Amino acid sequence: MTPPPASTTDSLPQDAPKAAAVAVESVRPPHTNYGGPSDFLSRVGNFSIIESTLREGEQFANAFFDTETKIKIAKALDEFGVEYIELTSPAASEQSRLDCIAIANLGLKAKILTHVRCHMDDARIAVETGVDGLDVVIGTSSFLREFSHGKDMTYITKQAIEVVEFIKSKGLEVRFSSEDSFRSDLVDLLNIYRAVDKIGVNRVGIADTVGCANPRQVYELVRTLRGVVSCDIECHFHNDTGCGIANAYAALEAGATHIDTSVLGIGERNGITALGGFCARMYVADRDYVMSKYKLHKLRDIENLVAEAVQIQVPFNNYITGYCAFTHKAGIHAKAILNNPSTYEILKPEDFGMTRYVSIGHRLTGWNAVKNRVQQLGLKLNDEDVKAVTAQIKELADVRPLNIDEVDTLLRRFHEDKKNGLDESQSMIGNDDC
Amino acid sequence: MTPPPASTTDSLPQDAPKAAAVAVESVRPPHTNYGGPSDFLSRVGNFSIIESTLREGEQFANAFFDTETKIKIAKALDEFGVEYIELTSPAASEQSRLDCIAIANLGLKAKILTHVRCHMDDARIAVETGVDGLDVVIGTSSFLREFSHGKDMTYITKQAIEVVEFIKSKGLEVRFSSEDSFRSDLVDLLNIYRAVDKIGVNRVGIADTVGCANPRQVYELVRTLRGVVSCDIECHFHNDTGCGIANAYAALEAGATHIDTSVLGIGERNGITALGGFCARMYVADRDYVMSKYKLHKLRDIENLVAEAVQIQVPFNNYITGYCAFTHKAGIHAKAILNNPSTYEILKPEDFGMTRYVSIGHRLTGWNAVKNRVQQLGLKLNDEDVKAVTAQIKELADVRPLNIDEVDTLLRRFHEDKKNGLDESQSMIGNDDC
Repeated sequence: MTPPPASTTDSLPQDAPKAAAVAVESVRPPHTNYGGPSDFLSRVGNFSIIESTLREGEQFANAFFDTETKIKIAKALDEFGVEYIELTSPAASEQSRLDCIAIANLGLKAKILTHVRCHMDDARIAVETGVDGLDVVIGTSSFLREFSHGKDMTYITKQAIEVVEFIKSKGLEVRFSSEDSFRSDLVDLLNIYRAVDKIGVNRVGIADTVGCANPRQVYELVRTLRGVVSCDIECHFHNDTGCGIANAYAALEAGATHIDTSVLGIGERNGITALGGFCARMYVADRDYVMSKYKLHKLRDIENLVAEAVQIQVPFNNYITGYCAFTHKAGIHAKAILNNPSTYEILKPEDFGMTRYVSIGHRLTGWNAVKNRVQQLGLKLNDEDVKAVTAQIKELADVRPLNIDEVDTLLRRFHEDKKNGLDESQSMIGNDDC
Repeated sequence: MTPPPASTTDSLPQDAPKAAAVAVESVRPPHTNYGGPSDFLSRVGNFSIIESTLREGEQFANAFFDTETKIKIAKALDEFGVEYIELTSPAASEQSRLDCIAIANLGLKAKILTHVRCHMDDARIAVETGVDGLDVVIGTSSFLREFSHGKDMTYITKQAIEVVEFIKSKGLEVRFSSEDSFRSDLVDLLNIYRAVDKIGVNRVGIADTVGCANPRQVYELVRTLRGVVSCDIECHFHNDTGCGIANAYAALEAGATHIDTSVLGIGERNGITALGGFCARMYVADRDYVMSKYKLHKLRDIENLVAEAVQIQVPFNNYITGYCAFTHKAGIHAKAILNNPSTYEILKPEDFGMTRYVSIGHRLTGWNAVKNRVQQLGLKLNDEDVKAVTAQIKELADVRPLNIDEVDTLLRRFHEDKKNGLDESQSMIGNDDC
């Protein structure tokens, strides 16, 4: 947990807010736990992350990770504290196989998994790479059975049992997952999950491969499955319709134990549950658990590492590390934030090595925020003065936003003029918190 | 509904996928309705959008909209089909007031609202601007009551009734919303909502001002409120913990009638429910309703307009319009997509004026995708040939990804060599769908 830097500009993310910004001393209000574990099923305070940037993430349009980059990313994720790191199938290409071997031999704390089709050929190649476990997957939806591999459930079940037993015989951890689970027949799913649970699979997996599921569907399916199998339950959510993080949360509420993530959510199409956003959600549910397990202040470096590797910009609105995630603008927000950050902040920036900003050089500014800046500059102005100069800022910012230097100049000039007895008070007070 | 362009590059968003991409003819499978209206409360098939880019969006760090830009955005949103457009309070600044008047007089189909504090001064200014309605807000959480305006519930209720009655007396539509609703006392909320409902408020509003709520909390609160008031229910969700879209969906499932959005989700901190992402979610719930109300193919232009106005890039992973939203990479995905797009697609790109791509010049490629390209090029190769050339592509792409020209050259050379009787088949077949 790093304290926020004193200055406005320190650790200000690239292309910082254009409008004037003021760093604010952070107040620590007593922690309250919003949306925390409510019923006995819930695992929101006890889950593991299966980090799939090096598998799902490699399916992102831009992704091409050479061995060195893969190793850098694996080490960074290990330091961050994820419990598992999932790698592309060694059957995908010769280099993919060699990279599995290289990463499995790094001696990381995180368990190394590789993701393979439910297929003896792939399983045989994978168990020789030295990974700790295999994530086995096969499509079970009518769509995939008809248009992808064209196999029926009896065949799939038989194959699943053969592959799972083979992997167990090698002493490795094994997960069996369906693909496109939310468009698969419920009874088919429960049958095959129970079959692999009976022969001692470590985890069964549910995957929203197309990103169609919503949180209530997820809660229902996971809760039902929780009553059928005794093994762990892993969930994988694509984000096509914006529910990747919420679905992961709903799954944990229903008793899921493992969640798949990738850095910045990179994956097929627009990706999956993002590591950073997932941490933000879980922090709000159980801050102590999340802070005890993951080095949250390393998030930004990992995101920058991956963003550079796949040649993308971190989105302006990215969770936690997006450059405006802790910027407050409206006067009514600024006023309250200055009294107590918890009024408009559910995430404490300092817990993530970030800094809070209150933007003041714009038409929505308020005199309380300006007063705070006046005090930071050590100027002597009473409330009436501050309201008057705030009115001037609003008037100028109605034409174009002011940067912090322009605001400071205005404040200093107003202070000078006042000393020289020229009070420029104007009439626009009272709009302080729009 | 625009059909997808024939060529690969047409309408390819800026900085398109680096790896080779192939445009695929779109197949129209029978529409299936995932997560659609299930119980009698649900409004997922019957809701209205209150578009707040010109209010919440103006609170985004970078936002400064001059009058001309505001008018452009308002017209674009009106053409898109949103039911309401919400504007910054006329009490914020003189220009804000003039802009309310200007936009209220454009004669748009959408109703024009402005967002004001629960305060007679603000209400008096607002009702004179010619808007169709006022969205009134006041903080009800203990946090805001203590650290923001410092008023108790009796005072707030008295003030709410006075303001609501005044606005109604002017014949305008009025919404009363609490702020930070999910950290407000439930009984306080229900009391004040019932009070304003009794005097004929048009809508009551629930706002997750800090972005702490999760879908199950939202469902519970809205469902409870639905049993207490007879007026409409509007919901406003910040996205700090990644639930902005999922919470909006849960609210509609519980009977909410109006959802606040902004283009690209811009707003305070990392913003609110994004218009595009919300449309993606609702399209999956009720495609016919969404397509009958909103001109989805205009989404990208509106997003580009706003992105330019606030000087941001559309995120790489943006819903629908992000440049990889319809790009398929893994061989197993490509194979099925070519058989039937619904296997890995829940959104039909052509419904949004977008095009589907299957990326093939990488180590995860599969021979089915390559075969598709061979056919597009009109080359005569049998399956064994295609598997052989796919192995060559995988081998080369293990060193660095290939662009479409490089892949085509490889295919043509292979075809030439074959005609000249030099078959270069290799051994790496069988990894087609990793």
